[in-house]
Amino acid sequence: MLTVIKIGGNVVDNPTLRQQFLADFAALPLPKILVHGGGKIATQVAVKLDVETVMVEGRRVTDAAMLDVVTMVYGGLVNKQLVAQLQALDCNALGLTGADGGIIRSKKRTGWNVDYGFVGDIESVNEEQIKRFLEVGLVPVFAPLTFDPALASMLNTNADTQAQAVAVALAKHFEVNLVYCFEKKGVLTNPEDDTTVIPELYPSTYAEHKASGAIYAGMIPKLDNAFKALHDGVKQVTICHATDLRQAVSEGTAGTRIRLTE
Amino acid sequence: MLTVIKIGGNVVDNPTLRQQFLADFAALPLPKILVHGGGKIATQVAVKLDVETVMVEGRRVTDAAMLDVVTMVYGGLVNKQLVAQLQALDCNALGLTGADGGIIRSKKRTGWNVDYGFVGDIESVNEEQIKRFLEVGLVPVFAPLTFDPALASMLNTNADTQAQAVAVALAKHFEVNLVYCFEKKGVLTNPEDDTTVIPELYPSTYAEHKASGAIYAGMIPKLDNAFKALHDGVKQVTICHATDLRQAVSEGTAGTRIRLTE
Repeated sequence: MLTVIKIGGNVVDNPTLRQQFLADFAALPLPKILVHGGGKIATQVAVKLDVETVMVEGRRVTDAAMLDVVTMVYGGLVNKQLVAQLQALDCNALGLTGADGGIIRSKKRTGWNVDYGFVGDIESVNEEQIKRFLEVGLVPVFAPLTFDPALASMLNTNADTQAQAVAVALAKHFEVNLVYCFEKKGVLTNPEDDTTVIPELYPSTYAEHKASGAIYAGMIPKLDNAFKALHDGVKQVTICHATDLRQAVSEGTAGTRIRLTE
Repeated sequence: MLTVIKIGGNVVDNPTLRQQFLADFAALPLPKILVHGGGKIATQVAVKLDVETVMVEGRRVTDAAMLDVVTMVYGGLVNKQLVAQLQALDCNALGLTGADGGIIRSKKRTGWNVDYGFVGDIESVNEEQIKRFLEVGLVPVFAPLTFDPALASMLNTNADTQAQAVAVALAKHFEVNLVYCFEKKGVLTNPEDDTTVIPELYPSTYAEHKASGAIYAGMIPKLDNAFKALHDGVKQVTICHATDLRQAVSEGTAGTRIRLTE
């Protein structure tokens, strides 16, 4: 089983949570892959560098100056700090962007009503190259940056989407468990109550929870994407809190496990 | 023959020179490795981030804030831009620091009369890991950063020294040509006259040029290091201008080639 884990800015930004998460991640069996989001550091660095942060409909617009900032912060500071912390935990991390080894190619987003700038939609994943890294015991750690060959440029890329594309591409070679660590304990029937985690979710129970209104709003696109990953060959999607990684992945006693069949 | 090429800040900082150099580098046969210096961008970013640049005896002092800056700029911005440019030239570049894959381990410099902060002296190079990358056609591109396992930290590292350590380590497996690109056309008998390049240098002729005073001052430690690399197993050291890479490496019609025997 290959484990592909996505962590967001909440883990990146919190030194205590991050160190605990990385210790748990380091203890997981090989093969495994980490995909990290950016965190607030990029915004803080951008402010100091006089680069304006423009958000449109909740998304960051990436102009050329902001692309430099996210390349520095996501591809440099955050990625290399995570790699160094993992190496110190005896986890043989290899920091990557989509440009390295030509692994994740993307295309600048066009045709939307908003120009998001240097933002990429993933076109292809070179899963053979990733597999070669895994085969020699390396642990790829991906920054949320991909490569547009037409522009000869990095592109800012959504980390959730990137984790999913990597997981789907590697499903040709591995049984893949795609794990999303986020701020909640899992998929909840009451978003205000962390004790209402749904431990297992299948297409039938997902439909029931939607019909009853227990699952709604922001969770629906996340879960639709999870089921899409399963239909594209991923064996299991796990949604859990970053502090519950070990229980959710190794023991199956925390978080929500999503599969097509029981 | 494995070619290990070091470029300095003058190439990194100049878009025209950089693009021409990278096109020449991309055209060289495999296997090959690039080691890059930092350039002035780190100082510019440090100024904007209110991180003070302290130089002692011509060396940058790297405190914790400056380590973040060089990790961002060298490991992120510069390294990933070089990788993206090379990928666009169909060169399968893989950006690395010494932390990635645990490839270059170092130790914080101590025992000097000046505390240079987070500056590393290289302790070991994992040449087997680099060899595995080369064997599958990847082109390692190293930022001047290494990894101190005791501190769980990146360390700022001299790019010349890093190139030499990588070249010496790989001399176990390859005939290595270590190429230093710098601002001059090669080793000159008159530093003011670019037409006075010494095409070939051996221990005997080096001694003669030193005795006659033709080679002096700043060039002597560079050449002592070059001869040390040769004694440590490197086959040839080439010193040339970044614009002459093709002639110096492929044709042997530019720059200075340094060997132990003719």
